[in-house]
Amino acid sequence: MSHNTYGHLFRVTTWGESHGPALGCVVDGCPPGLRLDAADIQHWLDRRKPGTSRFVTQRREPDEVRILSGVFADERTGGQVTTGTPISLMIENVDQRSRDYSDIARSFRPGHADYAYFAKYGVRDYRGGGRSSARETAARVAAGAVARKVLGEGVRIRAALVQVGPHGIDRSAWDWAETENNAFWSPDAKAAALWESYLDEVRKDLSSVGAVVEVHAEGVPAGWGAPLYAKLDAELAGALMSINAAKGVEIGEGFASATLTGQENADEMRMGAEGVRFTSNHAGGILGGISTGQTVIARVAFKPTSSIPTPRLSLNEAGEEIEVRTTGRHDPCVAIRAAPVVEAMTACVLADAFLRHRAQTGGGAFVPGQTGRR
Amino acid sequence: MSHNTYGHLFRVTTWGESHGPALGCVVDGCPPGLRLDAADIQHWLDRRKPGTSRFVTQRREPDEVRILSGVFADERTGGQVTTGTPISLMIENVDQRSRDYSDIARSFRPGHADYAYFAKYGVRDYRGGGRSSARETAARVAAGAVARKVLGEGVRIRAALVQVGPHGIDRSAWDWAETENNAFWSPDAKAAALWESYLDEVRKDLSSVGAVVEVHAEGVPAGWGAPLYAKLDAELAGALMSINAAKGVEIGEGFASATLTGQENADEMRMGAEGVRFTSNHAGGILGGISTGQTVIARVAFKPTSSIPTPRLSLNEAGEEIEVRTTGRHDPCVAIRAAPVVEAMTACVLADAFLRHRAQTGGGAFVPGQTGRR
Amino acid sequence: MSHNTYGHLFRVTTWGESHGPALGCVVDGCPPGLRLDAADIQHWLDRRKPGTSRFVTQRREPDEVRILSGVFADERTGGQVTTGTPISLMIENVDQRSRDYSDIARSFRPGHADYAYFAKYGVRDYRGGGRSSARETAARVAAGAVARKVLGEGVRIRAALVQVGPHGIDRSAWDWAETENNAFWSPDAKAAALWESYLDEVRKDLSSVGAVVEVHAEGVPAGWGAPLYAKLDAELAGALMSINAAKGVEIGEGFASATLTGQENADEMRMGAEGVRFTSNHAGGILGGISTGQTVIARVAFKPTSSIPTPRLSLNEAGEEIEVRTTGRHDPCVAIRAAPVVEAMTACVLADAFLRHRAQTGGGAFVPGQTGRR
Amino acid sequence: MSHNTYGHLFRVTTWGESHGPALGCVVDGCPPGLRLDAADIQHWLDRRKPGTSRFVTQRREPDEVRILSGVFADERTGGQVTTGTPISLMIENVDQRSRDYSDIARSFRPGHADYAYFAKYGVRDYRGGGRSSARETAARVAAGAVARKVLGEGVRIRAALVQVGPHGIDRSAWDWAETENNAFWSPDAKAAALWESYLDEVRKDLSSVGAVVEVHAEGVPAGWGAPLYAKLDAELAGALMSINAAKGVEIGEGFASATLTGQENADEMRMGAEGVRFTSNHAGGILGGISTGQTVIARVAFKPTSSIPTPRLSLNEAGEEIEVRTTGRHDPCVAIRAAPVVEAMTACVLADAFLRHRAQTGGGAFVPGQTGRR
Repeated sequence: MSHNTYGHLFRVTTWGESHGPALGCVVDGCPPGLRLDAADIQHWLDRRKPGTSRFVTQRREPDEVRILSGVFADERTGGQVTTGTPISLMIENVDQRSRDYSDIARSFRPGHADYAYFAKYGVRDYRGGGRSSARETAARVAAGAVARKVLGEGVRIRAALVQVGPHGIDRSAWDWAETENNAFWSPDAKAAALWESYLDEVRKDLSSVGAVVEVHAEGVPAGWGAPLYAKLDAELAGALMSINAAKGVEIGEGFASATLTGQENADEMRMGAEGVRFTSNHAGGILGGISTGQTVIARVAFKPTSSIPTPRLSLNEAGEEIEVRTTGRHDPCVAIRAAPVVEAMTACVLADAFLRHRAQTGGGAFVPGQTGRR
Repeated sequence: MSHNTYGHLFRVTTWGESHGPALGCVVDGCPPGLRLDAADIQHWLDRRKPGTSRFVTQRREPDEVRILSGVFADERTGGQVTTGTPISLMIENVDQRSRDYSDIARSFRPGHADYAYFAKYGVRDYRGGGRSSARETAARVAAGAVARKVLGEGVRIRAALVQVGPHGIDRSAWDWAETENNAFWSPDAKAAALWESYLDEVRKDLSSVGAVVEVHAEGVPAGWGAPLYAKLDAELAGALMSINAAKGVEIGEGFASATLTGQENADEMRMGAEGVRFTSNHAGGILGGISTGQTVIARVAFKPTSSIPTPRLSLNEAGEEIEVRTTGRHDPCVAIRAAPVVEAMTACVLADAFLRHRAQTGGGAFVPGQTGRR
Repeated sequence: MSHNTYGHLFRVTTWGESHGPALGCVVDGCPPGLRLDAADIQHWLDRRKPGTSRFVTQRREPDEVRILSGVFADERTGGQVTTGTPISLMIENVDQRSRDYSDIARSFRPGHADYAYFAKYGVRDYRGGGRSSARETAARVAAGAVARKVLGEGVRIRAALVQVGPHGIDRSAWDWAETENNAFWSPDAKAAALWESYLDEVRKDLSSVGAVVEVHAEGVPAGWGAPLYAKLDAELAGALMSINAAKGVEIGEGFASATLTGQENADEMRMGAEGVRFTSNHAGGILGGISTGQTVIARVAFKPTSSIPTPRLSLNEAGEEIEVRTTGRHDPCVAIRAAPVVEAMTACVLADAFLRHRAQTGGGAFVPGQTGRR
Repeated sequence: MSHNTYGHLFRVTTWGESHGPALGCVVDGCPPGLRLDAADIQHWLDRRKPGTSRFVTQRREPDEVRILSGVFADERTGGQVTTGTPISLMIENVDQRSRDYSDIARSFRPGHADYAYFAKYGVRDYRGGGRSSARETAARVAAGAVARKVLGEGVRIRAALVQVGPHGIDRSAWDWAETENNAFWSPDAKAAALWESYLDEVRKDLSSVGAVVEVHAEGVPAGWGAPLYAKLDAELAGALMSINAAKGVEIGEGFASATLTGQENADEMRMGAEGVRFTSNHAGGILGGISTGQTVIARVAFKPTSSIPTPRLSLNEAGEEIEVRTTGRHDPCVAIRAAPVVEAMTACVLADAFLRHRAQTGGGAFVPGQTGRR
């Protein structure tokens, strides 16, 4: 996590502004010999693509990714594979409407990065938020697609919205299949229906609202994560908090664990047919910064979209007091499109942890009652 | 954040196990010429010292820090100062009661790192939790003392407990001075009284409970933080989540921001007598990953102490199903002693962000209505 | 220096293969507000461009660089400037002659990276050497152009060839202006004339030859470099040795210093009109890993071009013993085109050292007889 | 290589000054389960210990190392092993003669780091050179001992002096066993005899002289090293150049390769009984930044000891022109004691490369004529 690079060994460097000619990333440190075509990446990009429902930005971007390096179609391997060299991915910005930005060029939109970038850099690309635009997350999703290849089929990463504004899902109704059937990645069909009417209301009120995304990584073996400052949960927290509009991250029970007793919180252990079996997962699959073999579970809170059509008091670069009101295409709930990004960042964190675990230990984990690594 | 090193430029590498001969850290990258004596560090260590009240571990450790390198008493500077070379800090373990560990040596205590360390490493120092013991946080607090020197008097970092089990404070009663008057770092005297009787009850029940710590960093100037993957909030999240028993981190409104509307969440801006003035601080002092000049605010959720005298089901290294019950000295609420650690990690994050900001920009920030950096 | 990223704060990540669609780099951590146009970069790229004389590869590449991010044309600044966000630079490969590679696809060319890449990765882009091609150095030169902007006009970095095969220059005839007048970056016109006939001979012999490049960085202030493992000379050594075909690096007297006595080697100091004055520069401007204010001087030895038309014994991937002979366009002395690359890497090292020095100290240096930093 | 930390995965952070209470290092990222006792480290420290012959400093230091963390004596493993947590090593400074330093406290000794540290930091521990003292290399040797454990018995790293002043060895007389028989690590007995009388002469002349150390790492498998900026040769160059007094590094033929033709330089390949066989090793075991399976060979040039009893012109901190003359115990040829340090740094570089190779590829290498990794 240096500047615009994420990761230690599986390293992702993203670049690009909302209204520049293109954006992209360089994925470095990827193991060689993994099958990788543009279509593998496009699949995940299409899931976060703008314009897929009336609840997300209507910007029209095909978001077509090109692989510029790091792969090779070798007849022996029967398809295009990674070569172990940097994988450069590029997505051209097509719909950079060259509209007149003079009204917002010198203004600070409340809740946005405008003022902070001005204070730090003095100069900023104000068109569409420039570098601080959520458009950058396309590069994360592309990198996440490569990370999934590193993790392989055994690790399954899925995110869902579990709360929109004040409306949470009914967790007993959780159905992963349902997340593909509604516009909100909701695992609860009823919640999705509620959110639909709720968000229509929010938009009519010229407002926006926040939400909470939950991600599950199934199949993560025990042993990933490197205490103490590269703990798996610490790295997840950092990576997920780096997503635009994120304001909170929790693992397992998270903030609710403050109210638990020691008895309640202890995930008890038994031997099952396939090895260690926990009777509960309050820990979210991580103890002491190391994965336990249970499903890794995290939640991310997103603030409401800052771009709203309702005027807010603010300043401009000249120090004048002004009103700011955002017009144009904007998501009423930015977190909806964040779900694929949460998945992607989780994939990057895990791929990086996997490689470091393999480096230090050779891979595998010790199993109670057995000798040596499995 | 690599292995056991925290930070990019202000780098802290900690080492040591609970029952080894000593623990400590190397603080590298510290600016030269800062006044630094052992007493400066001891002041903060004494605040997290075990045995200060009946609600924290009764282990008897003087926790006396020695500075082994990186400082020099130069007559011209009129006192001991940092030299810019690595500052090695060491704390000897005095009370490593060499009791018989054979009962827990091969067992996995639920909620602890035991099983995870076993799975990853195969071998582990099981005495007192070894490397995963909260004792390591003494090294963090020592490093945090150096970080405060880097930040100088202008930045003030204070933490408070705002919730113990289900009992939150009355925020309207917030009084920082009060945190020095009770055993719980509570800014609300009434809450402290309630927690006292509540925790006595918890202990009688052979149980433990979680809590939430809130930290405020006042005086952080605008411009610190480096998007996108070294965002100030992302780095705070990672650093705070790396503390033992942490399960959640939030910035500003955090998870509550999911329920806010865009209008509510927008921190509006006005020009005040001393420059930019925000009318609220839902953002917790960070926008787009960069500090805004407002107070930086974060909260950390801690799970209940995992060491409890009530038996829990578990396994041992042989794969046998057993019961585990922790006897001996243990905090009923581990978060109480975490408050100074939260402060220390926040100080380290900010010192590191300060140095990187100065590197890229030369320091200072642009102010609306003025030219050049201030 | 991780994988394909160079630098700590001024970070350059390069990507691309010789015969892929494009190559490029992401320059991250650049200070904001620096004037930067594509033409500023193109100037340096044109100096290393293939096809400029009969002594360098005849591949026809325009090597036109595009800036895809990280700059913004802001009317107030009166030109395009860096914004502090990642600068993505791309150069399309135009002349990737899609010739038949079947003859070398499975063969290991002696002296090349072929076998090493095969052993490590199993799969490799064999077209034109793939990632190991000297073509990658175009990205380094592009990054170096940005680094020069960071360093400003005060630091001047120039490289020259001082030896080709067994033929060294006459150092007493050194004239920097001359390096622009011949095809060899020779500061000695007579040496250049000799090399011309010598290299024609080498080529007629279906052979190639090595050379030594010397780089001078004038105007580097005292104080840059961070002991002990980020010493300025250690970082220069690493960066310069990372250039294709480099086999040796020395600073100041370098290997000759082994034969000097302590008296000879001591660069004595006097006070001059403009501060500290050294009476000699055996150290090459670096003591204890920190710049002294003298000209920083390094030399890099390059091996002969490995691609030669004379057959050599080798193996193929099937383990069969074969003969390999390289046909087609190739430099008889790869070091000629390395001179701009040596300059570029030196610029990157210095820009990175400058930023880190500013981070830790605020910038400037102490001067004997004066108080405070200058 | 950040500040005082070497390495990416196998990370060594050193600390300590020449005349402080102690010095040491933290070795982080070490694989778990390796046998490691203090005696394993002491063995290597004893080889660089001061006072072993009249040609090295007469400072009396027992250099006894203590392991403060990261190991555990577990009955199952039958001995003390690494646990995968940070290994803290400490060596107390015993012979920090508290002599009067007032004569040199404000002076800059030519060829030393004095002036550079003053310019950068303003304040410095001038006693015995402080942080810039060669005494720091004890920590490197200690870390190197751990690195050798990581590499295992299969990799053998040995260094020898091959030149002292103008006197080189007779390479045809190379005998590794001889390096243990003389005070100079000379593989050539006759050269050792010559150096002995030569250095006596040098000392009588109140002078000092430089030397060249050569290191061989046998048994390094093919595939280690990570292009492009973490090439094995680039990392070796950086690590070796970071050693005190180093002024040049070369790999394989090094600077001599500039004079070779392409035919001469090509290490031809044949299939041998045990796989790939090279008919020569001009490359020094590294091609394209990746090991080839041949012996890795590097040479390091060291300048003459800067501390000489002959007066030299210099300045003091007040800017006054003075004469400096070093009295007391000093090596006439600092490179003699550098040989174990060169070995240690080579071990650290290789251990780090090994772990990264295992991370990205799972370990092993492809072999011509066979499928899959071996």
